[in-house]
Amino acid sequence: MAERTLTGTGATPRSDVGTVVWYSTSTDLPDPNSVSVDQEDERERFEDARETARDELEAERERTAERVGEQEAEVFDAHVQFLEDPQIEDGVERAIDDELPAENAVQRAFADPIEQFEGMDGRMAERADDLRDVRDRLVRLLTDDDRVDLESLPEGSVVLADRLTPSDTAQLDPDRVAGFATVTGGRTSHAAIFARSLALPAVVGVGDELHDVETDATVVVDGDAGELVVDPSDERRESAQTAHQVEIHEEAVTTADGTGIEIAANVGQPAELEDAKAQGADGIGLYRTEFLFLDREQAPDETEQYEAYREALETFPDGRVVVRTLDIGGDKPIPYLDLPEEENPFLGERGIRRSLGPDADLFETQLRALFRAAADGDGCLSIMFPVVATPKELVAALETVERIANTLEEEGIDYAIPELGVMIETPGAVFAAPELAEQVEFLSIGTNDLTQYVMAAARENERVADLRDPRRPAVLRAISRTIKAAHENDAWVGMCGEMAGNPELTELLVGLGLDELSMSAVTVPDVKATVQSIDTETAAENVTRALEASTRDHVIDRIQRNNSNQ
Amino acid sequence: MAERTLTGTGATPRSDVGTVVWYSTSTDLPDPNSVSVDQEDERERFEDARETARDELEAERERTAERVGEQEAEVFDAHVQFLEDPQIEDGVERAIDDELPAENAVQRAFADPIEQFEGMDGRMAERADDLRDVRDRLVRLLTDDDRVDLESLPEGSVVLADRLTPSDTAQLDPDRVAGFATVTGGRTSHAAIFARSLALPAVVGVGDELHDVETDATVVVDGDAGELVVDPSDERRESAQTAHQVEIHEEAVTTADGTGIEIAANVGQPAELEDAKAQGADGIGLYRTEFLFLDREQAPDETEQYEAYREALETFPDGRVVVRTLDIGGDKPIPYLDLPEEENPFLGERGIRRSLGPDADLFETQLRALFRAAADGDGCLSIMFPVVATPKELVAALETVERIANTLEEEGIDYAIPELGVMIETPGAVFAAPELAEQVEFLSIGTNDLTQYVMAAARENERVADLRDPRRPAVLRAISRTIKAAHENDAWVGMCGEMAGNPELTELLVGLGLDELSMSAVTVPDVKATVQSIDTETAAENVTRALEASTRDHVIDRIQRNNSNQ
Repeated sequence: MAERTLTGTGATPRSDVGTVVWYSTSTDLPDPNSVSVDQEDERERFEDARETARDELEAERERTAERVGEQEAEVFDAHVQFLEDPQIEDGVERAIDDELPAENAVQRAFADPIEQFEGMDGRMAERADDLRDVRDRLVRLLTDDDRVDLESLPEGSVVLADRLTPSDTAQLDPDRVAGFATVTGGRTSHAAIFARSLALPAVVGVGDELHDVETDATVVVDGDAGELVVDPSDERRESAQTAHQVEIHEEAVTTADGTGIEIAANVGQPAELEDAKAQGADGIGLYRTEFLFLDREQAPDETEQYEAYREALETFPDGRVVVRTLDIGGDKPIPYLDLPEEENPFLGERGIRRSLGPDADLFETQLRALFRAAADGDGCLSIMFPVVATPKELVAALETVERIANTLEEEGIDYAIPELGVMIETPGAVFAAPELAEQVEFLSIGTNDLTQYVMAAARENERVADLRDPRRPAVLRAISRTIKAAHENDAWVGMCGEMAGNPELTELLVGLGLDELSMSAVTVPDVKATVQSIDTETAAENVTRALEASTRDHVIDRIQRNNSNQ
Repeated sequence: MAERTLTGTGATPRSDVGTVVWYSTSTDLPDPNSVSVDQEDERERFEDARETARDELEAERERTAERVGEQEAEVFDAHVQFLEDPQIEDGVERAIDDELPAENAVQRAFADPIEQFEGMDGRMAERADDLRDVRDRLVRLLTDDDRVDLESLPEGSVVLADRLTPSDTAQLDPDRVAGFATVTGGRTSHAAIFARSLALPAVVGVGDELHDVETDATVVVDGDAGELVVDPSDERRESAQTAHQVEIHEEAVTTADGTGIEIAANVGQPAELEDAKAQGADGIGLYRTEFLFLDREQAPDETEQYEAYREALETFPDGRVVVRTLDIGGDKPIPYLDLPEEENPFLGERGIRRSLGPDADLFETQLRALFRAAADGDGCLSIMFPVVATPKELVAALETVERIANTLEEEGIDYAIPELGVMIETPGAVFAAPELAEQVEFLSIGTNDLTQYVMAAARENERVADLRDPRRPAVLRAISRTIKAAHENDAWVGMCGEMAGNPELTELLVGLGLDELSMSAVTVPDVKATVQSIDTETAAENVTRALEASTRDHVIDRIQRNNSNQ
């Protein structure tokens, strides 16, 4: 069979070969007119789903009682009651008698009771939500019947999907999965970032053609070239498996002419700390703290946070760990926060805006935990504030820092004020960079958000993906302006967007004058190797030309010419 | 009774006195347990609503048959059938027997039929949508019972509301309404812009206190000071009615030292052209073309557009008319366009992105109409492209211009290529301003969008309203950079955001070097008067200091000091 190559965007400099498993995510109800219904089967399916739902609910009840409290857990008792309600059971039976599939029968049987509760007063009306939860759980369990279970894939699977959500990727076991490919997505999509953080071969944004690849086909996922090769030749197979024997650089590196460039890793989960270490990162340039707050019923307390930050510092006793304070906004569901529904969440209340507003309590607890972690022996802790757009916000954040320090002092608790910095990710911060740099020790350019705002092109929107390229002259000029402002004000400046992990751009970034680059762990070895081949003077000269380029094509052309001259 | 003053944001330099009418917009269903239901009344209310619905549907059917076609009109026949369906009628009767209010009864009676259709195949499933439309129409008519009818308010009414939507304001008759005040909203909210375009006294963003003002109270709406005065003294009343006798400047104006500044108006409806003329505008600096495309079943053809553009040119035979090509995106519903649902529509596919993509046909038709309008006698037509973020997009737009001109040439149709320009509203355009200015005759800075992108603060989001202030140093620096790039490349540069119509900022804007300011018609006289008092050299010196200001407070301080020195 001749090999066939589909192209997309490579997400990781890794390749592997494996067997296709299609992961489909539709939860549409079946069309009752086009399926033949065996009533006995449907009754059994309903019973099974009810059984599983009961087990799930009991497990969740237990977990909640343990982690949150007995009272909060009681809602699950109500759910179990609804699950066993004879009226609803009768309704499902009758609908199956009418030859509806079990999932449609559930939908119908819950409709009336939900409506009845909806018509009622205050607390009773809330029961309608409980009923909906129970109904949706049953429907999910019923429609899940033929869905691939991501947690128990056969070893060597290559997962193909339209897209993979954060909860999908959370289920993937990197030891069993050889890689994945998706129809949509770009270099900065969630799935791509996930692949890099686990060094998993992946190609995203392949397009509709991906649907032509069938389950059980043999494919090579080449995350470096951005290719999915169907029915690969023996040669191609072999090169995929042997490609990229990575050389780890454990020590800090300098350019060919001796300029030190700190190469750090971005981490979003404690498990990634060890990986960052293993790939030779000098430290952590972006420690996202959201994982501490997501998927739970209440915010983590000071002690829990303290321990998480200590763990990071202990993993890098000789390096720097840059912790970003909580960056949460209307696009993430967190039950215990009053997050508004916003029409444009990326242009809404997020990052420091919430920390200085509705989430001021969380912010103070986080700072306390950080200041305490900074006081202890190992490592150098830095903190930075996200989504700052005006110098006034920074002043307010620094006042909070001062206040917390005074309180800890008064309480006689050991603390230290960490090194302080600002994320540069809004254009407002770029234009105000001198005033920001003046007040802190470092700036860190978040190119994913910065690019989205400069180009007015949302991170999740495929229709404007082409605009969202950090190699565009407008973005390079914004970055250059920021770096100049930092250095003129004696601040060091790093970059922690996806751009920082692309070895093709390393010379450009060094030439622009960045002191630190922070990236997905998997790209650390390549970037460290690249840095060592760079001559800073030549790099700076090339940057002057790139900044004068009038289009992205010119920029790319100049970068490629420089890279091939090395 | 002592007078009481509530403060908000003034939307118009106009004041008046009037009587409060509260406009409430809730469409929540009543709580059936807390209302006592007279079954006879409810039956009658249902009958009345059904009658009105039938009348509305017939009128809509007729309009559609006329404007679109007989086939498209048939959907309304289906709606009338559902309205008269005996099964649904029975359902409503039974629910009213169960002591539900009519609106809840309608909700219940439609539930089963909607669900039945939903379970069916293809075309039948679409009937569920029709049923929903009919249900929603009935519920609206029933809950509208006690809603104020904005179209027939008593003369001298002052409308108070939480907020006013575009369809609310469209119903206000400026001859009968003395003004309005809203709980939410800022200077650039839809309601404020609407007030300015009609010279209607208005105060927005008063906050929850507004709810303390009762229907039938006498109030002064002072849109200049941003005050709502309840139970005003006789003195206050009188000054409100006599304040602001405007002097119209019909001729073009210059600064005190003789620099000509073009003062133009923004218009979004043909009716506003005469108003712009009456207020002394030199021309139109922003002619929004969306009104040609909204609220209809198909796009306007070339001839209809040609006539609209000719009308504008004929109103200003000696002035310039700057037409913005279609700026539409996922936040506006247009039935005949395939507009995507986007999570962040302001960062999505809008403006030139659609004109070079899915709406290329509309774009070409619009350009043909514009080129033909430019060929005829009167006026000077200019066109500008919205939401440009890269030089490449401009190149593509200019190629389309070239192609359309060639086609018109070949067809032997009279045409002229208008003056060409680019809206500067994305930070990307600011950073690429030199390359953009090089290729066109003018740039026009759209400060509303530019401020939203620079500050990453969405226009409609109250929670980030404070960030969205164009007096912030970051925004001023972006504006200054754009003006420099324009002049260095021999392009003139104007401003057409709300900032341009604020007389307190006129000296600053003249000092920055703008050649043209375009604003709501109502602010033209004030700005023209202000321009004549400005000395350009002093203005430029003051600007240098404003650009060095490190916070908005410093900027405001400097502007105020300058204004009071004059």
